[in-house]
Amino acid sequence: MNVWKIVGGVFGGAVILAIGLLIGHFGISKNSATPKWVDELSQDIDENFIKEFIKEVDNKAIENNLKVLSKRPHMATTDGDTELVKWILQRWTDKDSGLDEAKEEIYDVYLSFPDKNNPNNIKVLTPNGTNVFTSRFTEENLNENDQSDPEVTKPYAAYAPRGNPKGKLVYANQGKMSDFESLSKKINLTGTIAIVRYGGAGRSTKAINAHHFGVAGLIVYTDPKDINDGNADPSQTYPHSWYLPPSGVERGAYTEDFGDLLTFFSPAKNYTYRINESDIKGIPPIPTQPIGFEDAKTLICQLAGDDAPLDWQGSLGCQYKLGPGFLAGGIYTDSDVQVNVYNYAEVRPSANVMGMIRGTVEPDRYIMYGNHRDSWVHGAIDPSSGTAVMLEITRILGTKVKQGKWRPRRTIIFGSWGAEEFGLIGSTEFAEEYYSKLRDRTAAYINVDISVFANATLRAQGTPPVQGVIFEAAKQVQTPVPSLSVYDNWIRHFNRSSTVYNKLIPQLGTLGAGSDYAPFLHYLGISCMDLAYTYDRSKTSARIYPAYHTAFDTFDYTAKHIDPGFTSHQAVARTAGNVLLRLSDSLVLPLAPIDYWETLESYYNAAESNMKAELSNRKIPLEPLKTAVARYKAASDDLKRTIENLKDTQTTPLKIRMINDQLMLVERAFINHYAFQDLPYFSHVIWAPRTSSVPTFPGLANAYSKAVSTGLLEDWNQVHHHLTIVIQAIDNAASTLETVASI
Amino acid sequence: MNVWKIVGGVFGGAVILAIGLLIGHFGISKNSATPKWVDELSQDIDENFIKEFIKEVDNKAIENNLKVLSKRPHMATTDGDTELVKWILQRWTDKDSGLDEAKEEIYDVYLSFPDKNNPNNIKVLTPNGTNVFTSRFTEENLNENDQSDPEVTKPYAAYAPRGNPKGKLVYANQGKMSDFESLSKKINLTGTIAIVRYGGAGRSTKAINAHHFGVAGLIVYTDPKDINDGNADPSQTYPHSWYLPPSGVERGAYTEDFGDLLTFFSPAKNYTYRINESDIKGIPPIPTQPIGFEDAKTLICQLAGDDAPLDWQGSLGCQYKLGPGFLAGGIYTDSDVQVNVYNYAEVRPSANVMGMIRGTVEPDRYIMYGNHRDSWVHGAIDPSSGTAVMLEITRILGTKVKQGKWRPRRTIIFGSWGAEEFGLIGSTEFAEEYYSKLRDRTAAYINVDISVFANATLRAQGTPPVQGVIFEAAKQVQTPVPSLSVYDNWIRHFNRSSTVYNKLIPQLGTLGAGSDYAPFLHYLGISCMDLAYTYDRSKTSARIYPAYHTAFDTFDYTAKHIDPGFTSHQAVARTAGNVLLRLSDSLVLPLAPIDYWETLESYYNAAESNMKAELSNRKIPLEPLKTAVARYKAASDDLKRTIENLKDTQTTPLKIRMINDQLMLVERAFINHYAFQDLPYFSHVIWAPRTSSVPTFPGLANAYSKAVSTGLLEDWNQVHHHLTIVIQAIDNAASTLETVASI
Repeated sequence: MNVWKIVGGVFGGAVILAIGLLIGHFGISKNSATPKWVDELSQDIDENFIKEFIKEVDNKAIENNLKVLSKRPHMATTDGDTELVKWILQRWTDKDSGLDEAKEEIYDVYLSFPDKNNPNNIKVLTPNGTNVFTSRFTEENLNENDQSDPEVTKPYAAYAPRGNPKGKLVYANQGKMSDFESLSKKINLTGTIAIVRYGGAGRSTKAINAHHFGVAGLIVYTDPKDINDGNADPSQTYPHSWYLPPSGVERGAYTEDFGDLLTFFSPAKNYTYRINESDIKGIPPIPTQPIGFEDAKTLICQLAGDDAPLDWQGSLGCQYKLGPGFLAGGIYTDSDVQVNVYNYAEVRPSANVMGMIRGTVEPDRYIMYGNHRDSWVHGAIDPSSGTAVMLEITRILGTKVKQGKWRPRRTIIFGSWGAEEFGLIGSTEFAEEYYSKLRDRTAAYINVDISVFANATLRAQGTPPVQGVIFEAAKQVQTPVPSLSVYDNWIRHFNRSSTVYNKLIPQLGTLGAGSDYAPFLHYLGISCMDLAYTYDRSKTSARIYPAYHTAFDTFDYTAKHIDPGFTSHQAVARTAGNVLLRLSDSLVLPLAPIDYWETLESYYNAAESNMKAELSNRKIPLEPLKTAVARYKAASDDLKRTIENLKDTQTTPLKIRMINDQLMLVERAFINHYAFQDLPYFSHVIWAPRTSSVPTFPGLANAYSKAVSTGLLEDWNQVHHHLTIVIQAIDNAASTLETVASI
Repeated sequence: MNVWKIVGGVFGGAVILAIGLLIGHFGISKNSATPKWVDELSQDIDENFIKEFIKEVDNKAIENNLKVLSKRPHMATTDGDTELVKWILQRWTDKDSGLDEAKEEIYDVYLSFPDKNNPNNIKVLTPNGTNVFTSRFTEENLNENDQSDPEVTKPYAAYAPRGNPKGKLVYANQGKMSDFESLSKKINLTGTIAIVRYGGAGRSTKAINAHHFGVAGLIVYTDPKDINDGNADPSQTYPHSWYLPPSGVERGAYTEDFGDLLTFFSPAKNYTYRINESDIKGIPPIPTQPIGFEDAKTLICQLAGDDAPLDWQGSLGCQYKLGPGFLAGGIYTDSDVQVNVYNYAEVRPSANVMGMIRGTVEPDRYIMYGNHRDSWVHGAIDPSSGTAVMLEITRILGTKVKQGKWRPRRTIIFGSWGAEEFGLIGSTEFAEEYYSKLRDRTAAYINVDISVFANATLRAQGTPPVQGVIFEAAKQVQTPVPSLSVYDNWIRHFNRSSTVYNKLIPQLGTLGAGSDYAPFLHYLGISCMDLAYTYDRSKTSARIYPAYHTAFDTFDYTAKHIDPGFTSHQAVARTAGNVLLRLSDSLVLPLAPIDYWETLESYYNAAESNMKAELSNRKIPLEPLKTAVARYKAASDDLKRTIENLKDTQTTPLKIRMINDQLMLVERAFINHYAFQDLPYFSHVIWAPRTSSVPTFPGLANAYSKAVSTGLLEDWNQVHHHLTIVIQAIDNAASTLETVASI
């Protein structure tokens, strides 16, 4: 054997050995092989999938959705509503683009309707009883048969009682407590009929305030100053612009609470105990009726009495006077005004439509996305603009699921809520029925109600932890025109400087209780957001988009005056869908508890600067609140660092889950069901309604205002009580974020 | 090349290839190698470790613990208590046998004490004011200096107000509402002093009932019939037996609620708002004092008036009469009885001692184990028998941790609660302070208060899901004598036939609110249990062990009469420790929701047989409750099957975690903070206090009894309301157990 043979043999052997090594290493699976779930469990979000999703969002498809959704009036439980329940179910069970599961869930809820055969109205009656004026029964028909459609619900104030009170007319501005107080100093209001404009106070609150001063009947109208930037002439309003025509009437639920009014804290099922109607609180105690500004002008511009104050004046084109009664020598001299309300209430079956995409890795964690389905009339904007967006998102994601191309890490639940307009009823009953599992499993709720108020900019409201994921999503989406990221456009319209980020960031608004996020936020303590496109505030001061809750909120109105081309709808669908995907697919939930700290800190500072001296006098120390806020900051900073330092190879799926649970549950720690015992459902210590003007924790702020005004020891005790509740909630939240294995 | 060379070459090549294969497969770790946590995450309980633990539990060590714990009276916040805080901290921070972490946590709580310089007493005063009898200030000294120790708290009724009412004495049996009702038909009770025996009604309830009938002062005593199986002679009682000596007085908290009385729903920290003392509810409205049966005999056996009914008679050795006042011609004729109470209340710092062993795999899941530390006097049995057991468990587990031989899957938290005797205060304040994280993370709470009432058998109380793990643990532990498993011995004493298991099983008792499990169960909704060794009920009918809450509850009493050799203590330590290890180390939590179904079913059946006809008349259907119970059964059966069919290789750690969360959270679903608005902390729909005799859901049972008695429509409405609450809770529980990704 020569040396080359040896070399050749060695080389040949080496080749064979190498082949063996390669096959052995890569070709034969080990006995103790890595289970296939190891990779699956640590899979993070797929940015390419996000890009694909954004690309596929189709403005034309949204427009087509809206056409179907707004074709027919679909007030809760009417035929139009029932038809949409079926259509959405059909969309969500489609074999090519449907979800994994969809169903309708019925609640038997207490609703209030006008009598079809006996339209509500306002009459002017002369002393001998002659009827010299009757308000319009319906809105003027201005486009095809939109307003004259017999299914259009006649204007009414839902939950206002029947009755026909008459009396001398007075003008009471916005119907705020302070308005009636100042008016009552000049006029004995007992037995009068008051006319007030929308705005400044809640619908029902106006009626409750009026009743408090002895007013017998209430008329509510929309002033062109508030809704139309002063434009009142038909030539300036729809169909010529987005402004409200003179005959337009804002309908609405006149309630102070939300959820089914007969079944607080329980789902309104067939077995559920219902309180007596007479025990319902928070609805108008007197007949109340809304009218348009055409009719309001007839009444207000004939009023006698002193001139109304300057800031009570509106744009009806006359000097507003206070009354009582009409001008001497005018056509209505000595006449009474009569409010004729024929509403009736009944328990009716209202459906939610629920749809679901099962999560792969964490099926027991829910990301929820919802909007109501019911409108007052055609509801093209409110709420169908949101539903059109939701259906476009479900079409794309459903198709991916059916094609086997994608499935989320967490379970996604979609809700098309019923009877929102009557007081967030469908979503609230759902929250009540599934209280435990929603509380234990829901990481976030995304609400897109009206998706486009106007086409200028994104407007986002939410609890602080969702801020980051909205920013991230908005940076990846382009605005319609001019091409700019939604984020960059947003920051031009609404911004603030952030202590945490030490720079200018878009302003995330706070959530009240104006849409279906309310039960999820206030009752369940789930991190929530509400997304929409909205106005350029330099161009309009309209209280809301002018056709809101009127028969002019139609497809034609939307397509011509709100979002021609539906590109703002598209931007919202892309942004909201992106947020949804990031929440459902990210390995670590994109929620940032540190962002709560800015709120807590600013609330603390407001308390300190507004209250500290007086609290010191009362021996109520603020220091423990400061300590709690500092503890929260330390805990959220720590968790942030822990997340930043996570290393895939050393991080078990259970460690990620632990962190995700902390991120999910920190919001829950702010819930205290004993905090506000007279406000049903309001249990969130940070976001409950604040009536005081001090921008601090609502319970503390309200108690403080009351104590300052009464000076009573028991009221100062309540200040201390609410301060305790706040500290306790912040401590609980900090505790949720701190190292879990600690005592 | 001949054929052999080819064969040889091929063979050589094959060998080299094989070597390559082997090295490649076994010798070179893959890039995507199995992370080391894969096995760790699926590790189940180690039965050998359980055996080792059981073997190491040492009766002598428990005895030594008890010696230290009971050496000195240690009423909450006294020097004796503070000394034990230090000692337990020292044990738990020991470098060889301590826990990972231990600390004391202080709450400033409202406590009531007798005046040391002015002992409470009962006097008999003749009409001219001569004092002819004074009750004992202290118990008789019967062993060394146990009873004469100056640190022994003189007998008193904690929270009873100061005062010195006097009046004619009446005997009111047990002080139940019905007792006073029947007595008041014969005697005008206004201004009287009532004497009642312990038992039948809560301590404070007796005083509240008495006040309701105009009684001015209350005396409470222990009847030998109830505590001593009738034995009343000193020769028959301690030190000659376990029976209570004539001078023994049961102390106790006279409260109806639990937790710090000034800070409901908030931890009693320095910053916490406190209500006014005058707003405290549920404490005696009149001066109240407990006495021993020696003194009681002097008073009761001199009473005038009608004979008391047969079932009011006790074992004082005379005919019990009702009063008012004393026998004519006797030594006390026409005398008044005066109740002299000099209690005072103050806010004092009480400590919990908390200890922790960090979990490896699921540090964010807690198994809690606790007992109170404070006693009324030496408290050898109550609570030190339980603390002696807890310290033996922590010694063994702490040593294993320090030696690196073991660490639990889940985090274990030990609590030595303060001020339990005053109304479960330490545990309740802890539950309030950490409400969110305890609710979100605690899988079970094990309470071992008095560990040995007597040495006959295990007695376990708990919510149904913990039944199985107690059975399993009890089967692995031997009883002291005769040698039998604790389980087999238990089933001889307490048993029932189970529908689910279709056989005889030990009877798991239900939990009231008698020890520190109460806040965890009723406020937080955590699955709880309470374990102890107890009586042979064929041998005694004593209401509780006779030395309970007296100065005779000493080490001597325990070692001689309760558990000579401390082998029952040992059996409890082994059983409770085994339960603790199974809960903390099992891959799948050993909790069985299916066992709740038997309770729900029996409650439903009781409702059906007792209420259905009347409810039908009222148009309140029971059918939806039946449906809810059936839904719960289906869901818990399904989950049971899912668990039985789990296959390691296909089961991801997150799937196990999902199931464990369902097992942990099902108990939480029975919590409804709005269910019982006038009972602080009672939020558990299944276990809230039931005053009605119908063995069904407490809210339903109580509302039904009230409605039947008043016949008022509003009360029948409350029946329907509580039925709704029950259905809602069961539906929530079922929902927690059903497939998670469902709508």
